Amino acid sequence: MRVSIVGMGAMGRSLASRLVEAGHEVWAWNRSPLERSAWEARGLKVATSWAEVAGAEVVVSMLAHDEAVTQVFLQDGLLAALRDGTVHVNMATVSGRLAQDLAARHEALHRPYVACPVLGRPDAAAAGKLHLLVAGDPAVVARLQPLWSTLGQRTWSFGTRPENANIVKIAANLMLACAIEAMGEGAQLVQGYGMEAAPFLEMLAGTLFAAPAYQLYGALIAEGRFSPAGFRAELGLKDAKLALDAGERARVPLPFAGVVRDNFLDCLAHGEGGLDWSVLARAAARRAGR
Amino acid sequence: MRVSIVGMGAMGRSLASRLVEAGHEVWAWNRSPLERSAWEARGLKVATSWAEVAGAEVVVSMLAHDEAVTQVFLQDGLLAALRDGTVHVNMATVSGRLAQDLAARHEALHRPYVACPVLGRPDAAAAGKLHLLVAGDPAVVARLQPLWSTLGQRTWSFGTRPENANIVKIAANLMLACAIEAMGEGAQLVQGYGMEAAPFLEMLAGTLFAAPAYQLYGALIAEGRFSPAGFRAELGLKDAKLALDAGERARVPLPFAGVVRDNFLDCLAHGEGGLDWSVLARAAARRAGR
Amino acid sequence: MRVSIVGMGAMGRSLASRLVEAGHEVWAWNRSPLERSAWEARGLKVATSWAEVAGAEVVVSMLAHDEAVTQVFLQDGLLAALRDGTVHVNMATVSGRLAQDLAARHEALHRPYVACPVLGRPDAAAAGKLHLLVAGDPAVVARLQPLWSTLGQRTWSFGTRPENANIVKIAANLMLACAIEAMGEGAQLVQGYGMEAAPFLEMLAGTLFAAPAYQLYGALIAEGRFSPAGFRAELGLKDAKLALDAGERARVPLPFAGVVRDNFLDCLAHGEGGLDWSVLARAAARRAGR
Amino acid sequence: MRVSIVGMGAMGRSLASRLVEAGHEVWAWNRSPLERSAWEARGLKVATSWAEVAGAEVVVSMLAHDEAVTQVFLQDGLLAALRDGTVHVNMATVSGRLAQDLAARHEALHRPYVACPVLGRPDAAAAGKLHLLVAGDPAVVARLQPLWSTLGQRTWSFGTRPENANIVKIAANLMLACAIEAMGEGAQLVQGYGMEAAPFLEMLAGTLFAAPAYQLYGALIAEGRFSPAGFRAELGLKDAKLALDAGERARVPLPFAGVVRDNFLDCLAHGEGGLDWSVLARAAARRAGR
Repeated sequence: MRVSIVGMGAMGRSLASRLVEAGHEVWAWNRSPLERSAWEARGLKVATSWAEVAGAEVVVSMLAHDEAVTQVFLQDGLLAALRDGTVHVNMATVSGRLAQDLAARHEALHRPYVACPVLGRPDAAAAGKLHLLVAGDPAVVARLQPLWSTLGQRTWSFGTRPENANIVKIAANLMLACAIEAMGEGAQLVQGYGMEAAPFLEMLAGTLFAAPAYQLYGALIAEGRFSPAGFRAELGLKDAKLALDAGERARVPLPFAGVVRDNFLDCLAHGEGGLDWSVLARAAARRAGR
Repeated sequence: MRVSIVGMGAMGRSLASRLVEAGHEVWAWNRSPLERSAWEARGLKVATSWAEVAGAEVVVSMLAHDEAVTQVFLQDGLLAALRDGTVHVNMATVSGRLAQDLAARHEALHRPYVACPVLGRPDAAAAGKLHLLVAGDPAVVARLQPLWSTLGQRTWSFGTRPENANIVKIAANLMLACAIEAMGEGAQLVQGYGMEAAPFLEMLAGTLFAAPAYQLYGALIAEGRFSPAGFRAELGLKDAKLALDAGERARVPLPFAGVVRDNFLDCLAHGEGGLDWSVLARAAARRAGR
Repeated sequence: MRVSIVGMGAMGRSLASRLVEAGHEVWAWNRSPLERSAWEARGLKVATSWAEVAGAEVVVSMLAHDEAVTQVFLQDGLLAALRDGTVHVNMATVSGRLAQDLAARHEALHRPYVACPVLGRPDAAAAGKLHLLVAGDPAVVARLQPLWSTLGQRTWSFGTRPENANIVKIAANLMLACAIEAMGEGAQLVQGYGMEAAPFLEMLAGTLFAAPAYQLYGALIAEGRFSPAGFRAELGLKDAKLALDAGERARVPLPFAGVVRDNFLDCLAHGEGGLDWSVLARAAARRAGR
Repeated sequence: MRVSIVGMGAMGRSLASRLVEAGHEVWAWNRSPLERSAWEARGLKVATSWAEVAGAEVVVSMLAHDEAVTQVFLQDGLLAALRDGTVHVNMATVSGRLAQDLAARHEALHRPYVACPVLGRPDAAAAGKLHLLVAGDPAVVARLQPLWSTLGQRTWSFGTRPENANIVKIAANLMLACAIEAMGEGAQLVQGYGMEAAPFLEMLAGTLFAAPAYQLYGALIAEGRFSPAGFRAELGLKDAKLALDAGERARVPLPFAGVVRDNFLDCLAHGEGGLDWSVLARAAARRAGR
């Protein structure tokens, strides 16, 4: 397949390298221009026009946030430049509002559009081990089987309305933030009785909660290792807001999300916005006077 | 070893049968009298006096709550009847306050005392697959290795002060309640956009949260299967209070525990106190008008 | 003085009639056109161009929300049409973000600008009994003394940065929502013991809380009189969001605002968005199973 | 009337002096013995036996908390010593649980019993300006008119079940804590934009919230004057728990009370338990990084 990657951040680069490795023809585009020779050495082609981007069978976009997606596809015209047969696969985590807007705009233009936010970090992407949260027209989704099997260890299907996959991703991120907050509170509780947090968190991660989310963040909290940031607290706040906003539009109260939001603000107010979002546990510690 | 089991509820019976199976001499005692012939047929001896209970090397107590423990050990005199060499292993989930009180009373009487709340349901107990949260004098704990290896798949050590293991158990139960609440909120968020909860919860339980807590309760929530109750909502409320009270004594704010408490009250106010505590997800649904 | 009123809703009309009564020359402008003869009969002139609006010494704007202010002043060009000597007095409750933006734009154009959100309903406006929350250049504020003395029973000054008065208004509305929520919870507590809410709320309003906020909303809650709406629950939700957003920009956690937000959502999810915002007390009742 | 005062703390002394002033015969009793000559010089008689206490027409008890009431009336036997015709008027703020227990015990013994918690500080008591929250048998309440008119500026009636007046008092204290928390959040919001808290809080106390609660606590917050304590934060925490416990027994979720509880814990964890409970505003400030 000929695939264009729009957005060559850490995730975009990993996707691109995986696709090249699997024998696809990959064209790369980025908002700040790419150095042609370096990328070509890695087997990519550098696209310099919407025509080159849109010349692919699939345009995979992996942009950082709503503003970037809006800029590239709506203001700078990539949506309008897409050809009839090109499928746009949007892997970014965007707001529920933008997700609905994008779906409507692609439909109005009869452009095939699949939302596919992912679970996994760049190393998982490079290894083809992502979990893919897919929603869109089933016929289009089926056509992209080579893409899914190259990039993901598993595809999770969330129906035909693309925006639904984005809501699921927002909800999944909320689950992560809640797990971090819960571990932070539990850690303070045991520390309040003179124990270390580590044995408690290790026990959780080895028993009832023997899953990646608790193992990864439990270790970071136990060790107080909030730097370097895998995902920054200020982005955690942004994601909590995406959940609250999505809840608001659907009239769903989310009290845990509200607590998480306030505690991220507490972190930002204490200069911790650039640390890993597991620093949420520091807010719990501060409140307990530690 | 000669082991007495005090409290022959579902858990006590499973512990007893496992110990018998492993070749230990097991004496059983219960608050409401046991039918001698039936139990003897299963290889147990029925104790009818504190002397018979206290004649064992280990007295394992598995009583339902603070009131039962207080009644049996303090008011009815089992603590005073314990012999010098007998170790009391308390497996009940008790409050932080009672845990500290029991530890102090055993120490004042020079009676060896180990707290050992457990993770796992009766079937895990019968199979020797419990996770044992142990705290107490290391020499005493070491002496009981045959007990631990018979009952548990793993022993998690929380130091020398017995009450600490009880705090850890309270904190672990809080983690479970928080996971249920988080799933309840996430489920409402995706349902707010017209999706079913099940695919979302299955995806969580197959990816970031692939752990028993999320798999078990995620399935109950997805199916709305809150009866029969594995653990009743009214006991969930009690456990949330144990966490809040323990936090209060150590001056640890626990905002998630407060939300959970209010939502359990919401369940009780709607007649759901006897349903499984995963019914917490119904409170989230009610608030969203569903 | 020649005064233009931009926005002839209930509040705008009351301001206009008060100003006419006090002998000022009043020009009225509205987004949906005004019927000239009817208004002229009441002593007003109807403005049909920005030139007529901007011909006044003071342009008082009283528009419904951010969108209306943005439309009229920025998109439709009234800001650009303001003359050098004309003071713009903005009485709308706008977001902190728009408040800062407006202040900056007026300053860039060297147009005198005063923010003056108000406390009080249309009847207070018609009687000149508003409380005026004023912020802006002191020299300009001083020049408008005839305006303040006509419209307000008292002017409260919040410094020289216009946006500050908007933040104060947002915070004051949050105080109101919190008072309503607190009364709702207290009412449920006493009802939980078989008492009526009314004697409790009357006692509060006659003792420690003998103030308009508790007297007005206490009576509405006691009588369950949520219709007709003095201020709709869906606007209450909007105001809670203004507070949360303003807090977020300044990194201030606001846990009470989060609770209020969720309870307004609960109301909207139950079809109560069009009722008076004191219907917040119904959310508390629902949670208690009433 | 002959009146016994049980509990000669600051409030008890003020009640006694007011009653003496009004010409009543007052007998005083206290847990730590009173110096006879000093009190007799002020016109009181010092009671040294339950017979002397119970010889009055009215026994007014004003003890500090549940433990003191339980000790004096149940363990030390004052309840059993009450005569047939003596009315016990209990002015203490007690828990809902003890309130119900006391009512039942008096009824079982056919002893007339009226609960009368009060609003007002010792200076209001000395001036006969208390607000009296009264519940009990109407015939008994009517008989005590001389007492009410001496001590109170107004009597608020809450029906025939004495415990109801205690619930109302608990709910009223919750309203106060909520008002303090709300002001603390509002103050942080305006401070987040570079303003002082004082003008904002003064405006509130002069407009929508022109009531004693906001005027008193608004001034303390504005000035950061948390010492000397009129009412200590650790007692504020106790009162929040009384509300939460009362809510729990009646299955009433109280999210504001939960927030208040956590913030009092935050204060205690920072060594502020002995300061005035308006120090709750400091918890809000800490979270905002101030």
